[in-house]
Amino acid sequence: MKALKERILRDGKCFEGGILKVDNFINHQMDPILMKSIAVEFVRRFASTNINKVMTIEASGIAPAIMVGYLLELPVVFAKKKKPVTMENMLTTSVYSFTKDRSYDVCVSKDFLSKGDRVLFIDDFLANGNAAKGIIDLVEKAGAELSGMGFIIEKAFQHGGDYLRNAGIRVESLAIIESLDNCEIKIR
Amino acid sequence: MKALKERILRDGKCFEGGILKVDNFINHQMDPILMKSIAVEFVRRFASTNINKVMTIEASGIAPAIMVGYLLELPVVFAKKKKPVTMENMLTTSVYSFTKDRSYDVCVSKDFLSKGDRVLFIDDFLANGNAAKGIIDLVEKAGAELSGMGFIIEKAFQHGGDYLRNAGIRVESLAIIESLDNCEIKIR
Repeated sequence: MKALKERILRDGKCFEGGILKVDNFINHQMDPILMKSIAVEFVRRFASTNINKVMTIEASGIAPAIMVGYLLELPVVFAKKKKPVTMENMLTTSVYSFTKDRSYDVCVSKDFLSKGDRVLFIDDFLANGNAAKGIIDLVEKAGAELSGMGFIIEKAFQHGGDYLRNAGIRVESLAIIESLDNCEIKIR
Repeated sequence: MKALKERILRDGKCFEGGILKVDNFINHQMDPILMKSIAVEFVRRFASTNINKVMTIEASGIAPAIMVGYLLELPVVFAKKKKPVTMENMLTTSVYSFTKDRSYDVCVSKDFLSKGDRVLFIDDFLANGNAAKGIIDLVEKAGAELSGMGFIIEKAFQHGGDYLRNAGIRVESLAIIESLDNCEIKIR
């Protein structure tokens, strides 16, 4: 996706340790026009896929997911990172975050993810794939089906994408970062 | 907003202690078509207001905020509930949550909230107004201006709205809950 790649090269910032900051247009300040174009591209790439629900994880996945849901006229469920006090009937999984060096719980209500659901998962980043693995676990526990996973940015050098594709999952990443070595952004 | 009020009466669930659950269409599973109608109504209500930025707090505010930003073609900033490790140059405030009975930090980068910004704040709920007060504090610390605050649902009996309006803030709530006594939803 040309507009996205150009924006990453223009506004993305690279830090030691393979960190790419895109917080001025994706995950702190967001550009809603770009977000809508991103959603259109996801819709195009998953056009042949049978989906009845869009899913994401709070917080940065919500904006692209709601745009995809709006275009497809499908409900959007966001998995939560802690078990809210007013929630029962939950499916829970544990996700290890390399960035934060700790595990956190991700949960979703059984009311909104269940047998018969065909899920398109949307998120901002695919790095090690740990969050994605958590979603796969939740979808399996619910007896639902994973139709595909779409990411705005994939960091190929952290190999989450390899894992997911080898597991037979349909993965679409709109910008694939080959390397951030020497703090230089190289896009495939 | 008629469609929203009808939806709350149909799908909202009431629990002891003034709790209204709308997690099947607003803050866990989301209805993107309704969310877009909500955004249109916010745009209509704040039509006379001078805004250059939409702001919200993660996570439930992001969906309505991105839709408002999309319609107005303005950037959307979401304040974060913990200080991310890769973020510097932050403004921080503390917010007390009655639901969770604990305080949490809310922060925003100075890069995305600064002098000259005229902010429309959008969120899903206005209850005691503590999150809103946190945003007011961040906007003041940034030297920015608060143009208005829009909420999908206001719980009038928890008086956050009284506080904000008495402070001279332009507040628009699309559905105002008068009472949840005896687990019956009464909308103004």
